[in-house]
Amino acid sequence: MGAPKVMSTERSVGVVETRFYEHRKPVSLESGMILEKAVVAYETYGTLSPSRDNAVLLCHALSGDAHAAGYHSGDSSPGWWEDMVGPGKAFDTEKYFVISSNVIGGCKGSTGPSSPNPATGKPYGLSFPVVTVSDMVEVQKLLIEHLGIEKLLCVSGGSMGGMQALQWVVSHPEVVSSCIPIASTYKHSAQQIAFDEVGRQAIMGDPAWRSGDYYGHAGPVRGLAVARMVGHITYMSDRSMEEKFGRILKNSVLGYEFTQEFEVEGYLKYRGDSFVKRFDANSYLYITKAMDYFDLTREKSLMRVLGAARCSRFLVVSFSSDWLYPSYQSKEIVKALKMNGNDVTYCEISSDYGHDAFLLEFVEETRLVRHFLDKVMRDGRRC
Amino acid sequence: MGAPKVMSTERSVGVVETRFYEHRKPVSLESGMILEKAVVAYETYGTLSPSRDNAVLLCHALSGDAHAAGYHSGDSSPGWWEDMVGPGKAFDTEKYFVISSNVIGGCKGSTGPSSPNPATGKPYGLSFPVVTVSDMVEVQKLLIEHLGIEKLLCVSGGSMGGMQALQWVVSHPEVVSSCIPIASTYKHSAQQIAFDEVGRQAIMGDPAWRSGDYYGHAGPVRGLAVARMVGHITYMSDRSMEEKFGRILKNSVLGYEFTQEFEVEGYLKYRGDSFVKRFDANSYLYITKAMDYFDLTREKSLMRVLGAARCSRFLVVSFSSDWLYPSYQSKEIVKALKMNGNDVTYCEISSDYGHDAFLLEFVEETRLVRHFLDKVMRDGRRC
Repeated sequence: MGAPKVMSTERSVGVVETRFYEHRKPVSLESGMILEKAVVAYETYGTLSPSRDNAVLLCHALSGDAHAAGYHSGDSSPGWWEDMVGPGKAFDTEKYFVISSNVIGGCKGSTGPSSPNPATGKPYGLSFPVVTVSDMVEVQKLLIEHLGIEKLLCVSGGSMGGMQALQWVVSHPEVVSSCIPIASTYKHSAQQIAFDEVGRQAIMGDPAWRSGDYYGHAGPVRGLAVARMVGHITYMSDRSMEEKFGRILKNSVLGYEFTQEFEVEGYLKYRGDSFVKRFDANSYLYITKAMDYFDLTREKSLMRVLGAARCSRFLVVSFSSDWLYPSYQSKEIVKALKMNGNDVTYCEISSDYGHDAFLLEFVEETRLVRHFLDKVMRDGRRC
Repeated sequence: MGAPKVMSTERSVGVVETRFYEHRKPVSLESGMILEKAVVAYETYGTLSPSRDNAVLLCHALSGDAHAAGYHSGDSSPGWWEDMVGPGKAFDTEKYFVISSNVIGGCKGSTGPSSPNPATGKPYGLSFPVVTVSDMVEVQKLLIEHLGIEKLLCVSGGSMGGMQALQWVVSHPEVVSSCIPIASTYKHSAQQIAFDEVGRQAIMGDPAWRSGDYYGHAGPVRGLAVARMVGHITYMSDRSMEEKFGRILKNSVLGYEFTQEFEVEGYLKYRGDSFVKRFDANSYLYITKAMDYFDLTREKSLMRVLGAARCSRFLVVSFSSDWLYPSYQSKEIVKALKMNGNDVTYCEISSDYGHDAFLLEFVEETRLVRHFLDKVMRDGRRC
């Protein structure tokens, strides 16, 4: 939405390339299953300091990828967080070494259900093991180690990216100096699970899904488009939809037929149809499942879970009109951190953009993030 | 949800039957199309007074029918508004003659896309003309005339029922003494259109839909189930889902597979699968389209549209946690009525049930409706 139509290298990291790290040893997953090997797609921006103390890890949301900033050669659209990552920006690439990695289970270069199963040479499909947010983080840990980094100045991300950031401090508190979860939660609610399940049912109900074994065929394009349409409604707010579309008709009169007559219908259809060209339906199943499984409090209270992360500093951000990941979920994180004695700053940014705000409200986010990272860089861990 | 498991005739209208009125003349529709004839399914409860001044018309929501109260012979579940209609209840059948009619376009006895097309003898399918809320009301008007009723003491309904109630006072202000729109709106918003369009895309994207010509075949059961699942999420609130399901698992452990593992997933699947047994997919398309077309302000401001209804009394009700038909939409109606000089009472009932509250919060609703109808019966029209 905020993307420029032509490439602008001003304050941009410029042309970048996605790289790949192949971990050739088996990876044990939370389910008890084994992933024979794992490829991780990632990008880096900026320079690692000689003391290796300026690394920031960015984690993406459901449909994101490793391409957070800059431009791929020949592309006119930048990465998904271009407004936040670059020289002089919130994640200032003149100060920080920024790493952005694609999650396993996805379809953007990291190992996922569309990757070849080493045992058969054919795409995994549903034989790919179910992965969790914790598994995503463990594979990111392997990448970080591969890059020779022992400590992360910060882990941040919006939505599912925020879940990964929280999981990082819980799984590896000694590694992470600070954490910025944005528009996120410490556990998926019943409503969040429900929306994801509707998307999965739309995909799995499409006969072209063929129990996940559709590679080389058309695939469940109708089902995946419906899943994405549902998603888009939840990413916007009632008000932002009203302001953007209202009841505006594509043509000037009602047609009394079952086509996309309202602009909002056309927008959703377009978004759904575009999505199927760039996203794998099985990855949609796996990644939404990982989010639905996400619950840091499965075994103990949030305060106890965060106990070992007492020395990490937190900046928690939510948006007033985000009803998919409402502010109360962020406030629960903040409350547990406060009770835990953490250094935590919380801000609810006033915005009409709904959940999408984490990608759009970069001016406010920049102010918060820049100041916070300056402090973390200056003061280090809290203890 | 509040329905008793066994038939309870206490304060119930008891055993009732759906009846049918066949209007054998052509009906002109808002689109300019003609419906050759129209059947209306309806039920009545209570007794019409000798002066014919105690008739109350109830209008149903998307998936409702004429069976608002009492029990069909052999059934253990009562009508959809049993808690509100009966002797001594809000719509007191000892005082009022209550009429409940099924909308055209539906599949519960009134003419709709699954009815035989007189021209071919086969089900209409998509050759059924698109109908609007105004068309639904005009056909109800024919029913009322057939019943020998010239004036309605009140028209009421929740959700789409509220839209019909509002349309009644706009189309026939001289006929309607009072109006009780509940959890409703005077125009569908972009978000409301968007949710409906997702449902329609789920149905029309199902190959078994066959462009609407599926009668005699299995039909788009997967697509319709997905549409209903989306609907159910929007009918509940985040909090009511959390309280009812939370993250409770159907089995005690995560299965790491793509089945319904969480109770909320099982509930949605069950609701979706049950719905397809009782509802026609094409009717889902037609009725949601009618709602999306609903906009009383297409040609002039709400205040001007309501101008001729100045003498009708209004009770407008909304629910605090209803995010599908949020209170602000009801408040806009109230504001226009106030500016118009109408006699209007507004109440936002505090409830966690979301949009479903209009079916569940009958204690509060009863208090409001009973008092309001007493006043209308006693004082008549405002002018």
